[in-house]
Amino acid sequence: MAGTQAPLVVAVGDPAGIGPEIVAKAWSARATSRIEPFFAVGDPRTIESVWRGPLQRIKDPRDAVQVFAEALPIFAVEEARPDLPGRPTYEGARCALQSLELATGLTMAGAARALVTGPVCKSQLYAIGFNHPGQTEFIAERCGVAHDNAVMMLAGPSLRVVPITTHMPLADVARTLSIEMVVAKGRATARGLQKNFAIANPRLAFAGFNPHAGEDGMIGREEIDILQPAIAQLQAEGIDATGPFAADTMFHSRARSQYDAAICCYHDQALIPLKTLCFDEGVNMTLGLPIVRTSPDHGTAFDIAGTGAANPGAMIAAIKMAAEATRTRAAYISEAA
Amino acid sequence: MAGTQAPLVVAVGDPAGIGPEIVAKAWSARATSRIEPFFAVGDPRTIESVWRGPLQRIKDPRDAVQVFAEALPIFAVEEARPDLPGRPTYEGARCALQSLELATGLTMAGAARALVTGPVCKSQLYAIGFNHPGQTEFIAERCGVAHDNAVMMLAGPSLRVVPITTHMPLADVARTLSIEMVVAKGRATARGLQKNFAIANPRLAFAGFNPHAGEDGMIGREEIDILQPAIAQLQAEGIDATGPFAADTMFHSRARSQYDAAICCYHDQALIPLKTLCFDEGVNMTLGLPIVRTSPDHGTAFDIAGTGAANPGAMIAAIKMAAEATRTRAAYISEAA
Repeated sequence: MAGTQAPLVVAVGDPAGIGPEIVAKAWSARATSRIEPFFAVGDPRTIESVWRGPLQRIKDPRDAVQVFAEALPIFAVEEARPDLPGRPTYEGARCALQSLELATGLTMAGAARALVTGPVCKSQLYAIGFNHPGQTEFIAERCGVAHDNAVMMLAGPSLRVVPITTHMPLADVARTLSIEMVVAKGRATARGLQKNFAIANPRLAFAGFNPHAGEDGMIGREEIDILQPAIAQLQAEGIDATGPFAADTMFHSRARSQYDAAICCYHDQALIPLKTLCFDEGVNMTLGLPIVRTSPDHGTAFDIAGTGAANPGAMIAAIKMAAEATRTRAAYISEAA
Repeated sequence: MAGTQAPLVVAVGDPAGIGPEIVAKAWSARATSRIEPFFAVGDPRTIESVWRGPLQRIKDPRDAVQVFAEALPIFAVEEARPDLPGRPTYEGARCALQSLELATGLTMAGAARALVTGPVCKSQLYAIGFNHPGQTEFIAERCGVAHDNAVMMLAGPSLRVVPITTHMPLADVARTLSIEMVVAKGRATARGLQKNFAIANPRLAFAGFNPHAGEDGMIGREEIDILQPAIAQLQAEGIDATGPFAADTMFHSRARSQYDAAICCYHDQALIPLKTLCFDEGVNMTLGLPIVRTSPDHGTAFDIAGTGAANPGAMIAAIKMAAEATRTRAAYISEAA
């Protein structure tokens, strides 16, 4: 693990998406947003094609901190053909994958203190042979962590959510949920909040699966058969787990003040409130890894790439959250020692 | 149908819930919130037990407008035993049902210009033999409308949502959704927005069922098999229907500005964003009825009944929305004539 003085690393993501623009804009905001030194990994030409600011190629991550004050440091992954904004290509997907691989390796090796990943295009990655469901699973594998133990947490200024299931048909969720899965996610979330956010006794609120959390079995039994036993088990382990609650009344401001993270049964149950409340600042943090990894919670936005309209808010939030988490982890580790 | 000069009627709901308190508080706010004359239907003693303001029993709804300036007019439904706040009883449920029936009848007869219903306790109603899923279906039946044609719309200051399915197990939704059902809800919503909200060409945005709206069939097929054909049919009828969209990115402020109502596949998909954004002001309006009917979008809150802590915001919003809708309907009818 890197010390808290090493730079952060940002994999630029798909070069035809908004990644190059938001990485550059995040660097431009380094003073006003108090962003700590980072370096990019990607094809410098894709940034130059959308941005006129100072870019400096580096060959050693240790140079990044010094360069950062005057130019955006970039560790170059050069491809045969630079992509045009908004027009994804296989070459671009290869560049994104190489950037991800390199940035992950540099973080594992301690040359970067935390990993931030820009948006990629999954269908393009699949087309070049990428066989992980997403970047998170790829990173987990590189870290030697079973991907069931890598937990996706989405965090904004006023809400943190963890979806227990993610990119599966909604009709399959009921038969996929299990007590073991809910317990594993709850446990990893509690540990992750302690380690990365310095919350000593994290309060986890579980969302019911059915309308009104099933009304005591009147509207579905997943609460009784799966969620209640899982919550009881977490409580028995000393975790402050509560619920299942009616999901629709969990996300207004008074309700949110009662927990540190909401654990949700499926993708939209978690992502609807998060993106409704924190659309431009949502950060995806992977819990359960030996490294700190965050990502802006949005896609490549090919439709606006190259127009200058991309909002760097979530990228800035992802970089800042990663930096803060490395400091919290360092304190956590030294306390534990 | 009543003219727009008749009073509104508010059925108090379960006497042991917060209904009596929020009806009284709404009357108290009549000047500051510019609330038009209404009268309550319920047991006066249940209001007296939680409120010290002036209450006046009326025997004729026509007296309500004059009384309203100085006292809360109430059309009395007396029960053998007044309920205690927070302690629901069968007598209370009977009182709530009689109040609902009377208030509905008065509105149908034109003695009241619109119906506002307070919160009831369904399990108590079922226990006394009530055999409708909820108040909405009861009112639809009394109005001679098939309950499939009575559409529940939830509306707050910044969002209107229509759930296509409501209180059913989430695992059953996929097999329940049909093209016909989606088309029927879309059609009724468009008509309801024209008639009650004076929106000439309502823009309806449909939420996908699966994460990311199924990603072209990669994550479920309900979008391709049900939602797309239904939307195409609505478009063919001249309705401005769009989607299906990824549900998680439909509810932030820029997205909301693009439609007049979001049509959602299931309860929580509609209710999570609505209650996240408009918790204290959510109104349930039934579209497709010959009368105007609204309700505050919250329950009986037995846990705080009698404490004085109930927020009348949603009740006030429900009364005001009902009043406004009767004026809009009158204009719509006279235009059509």
